Amino acid sequence: MRLTKQTNYAFRILMYCSANGGQLSRVAEIAKAYGVSEPFLFKILQPLNEGGLIETVRGRNGGIRLARESADITLLDVVRLTEDNFSMAECFERDDAECPLVETCKLSAALREALNAFFGVLAKHTIADLARPHDDISFLLGLEARKEALAAV
Amino acid sequence: MRLTKQTNYAFRILMYCSANGGQLSRVAEIAKAYGVSEPFLFKILQPLNEGGLIETVRGRNGGIRLARESADITLLDVVRLTEDNFSMAECFERDDAECPLVETCKLSAALREALNAFFGVLAKHTIADLARPHDDISFLLGLEARKEALAAV
Repeated sequence: MRLTKQTNYAFRILMYCSANGGQLSRVAEIAKAYGVSEPFLFKILQPLNEGGLIETVRGRNGGIRLARESADITLLDVVRLTEDNFSMAECFERDDAECPLVETCKLSAALREALNAFFGVLAKHTIADLARPHDDISFLLGLEARKEALAAV
Repeated sequence: MRLTKQTNYAFRILMYCSANGGQLSRVAEIAKAYGVSEPFLFKILQPLNEGGLIETVRGRNGGIRLARESADITLLDVVRLTEDNFSMAECFERDDAECPLVETCKLSAALREALNAFFGVLAKHTIADLARPHDDISFLLGLEARKEALAAV
């Protein structure tokens, strides 16, 4: 059982933006920091943008930033936008008519209850919790070096 | 986010055995009831057998049955045997050195807490809960027809 790679990088994108404060973050820089491709990140940005978690500014000096405070973005907000399937097991999907128990089985309800407990914890944690201001996250993401370079110009 | 197909069918195998009472169930019959192949089921039987959830009897009249009461087998017992990865996201795996935040990030702890809540609910439900004796599960699995055929011999 695991979250999709999209969800994983959605968390990381939002943490990057959080560490970068209100400044615009360039997707190329985020991609470089995490060692992934830009097209891969753009695919994840789409649901985050449509879901109101980030805003994008186009143009040469454009980039992305959080659309609301990182303390107001829960992990559940993210997972809801990036995970496209919470059926937990294929026997609950409409196109699976193989299992003769699908109508009577209590498995679906039990897994749903477990999933709700999982969601309940995700709703308690925010992007701000993941990367507190005093953490060395900015340094690790190369944002400190970037600020110094900007200051030196 | 979803459980593996192996876990899904592990639940179904155990439900089948539970519905069949103390009688031996033939893998060929379980495969037929769920519309899957026998080799696929055999792969799942191995961890269930090694983990002490089922016992196998070899030979022409052999088969499988629960190794303990279905009320003593929780969904968590099953998931522990059949899910081989609870890292939730690839950034917590040892062979992933890409993420610069892996040491400082609080995501791992948050997801672990959520996963524990998920497990907590699974530990409350048993195989017996999934398929109560009064349910029509035996009929749906074709076990009633089998019993009638045996009685008619």
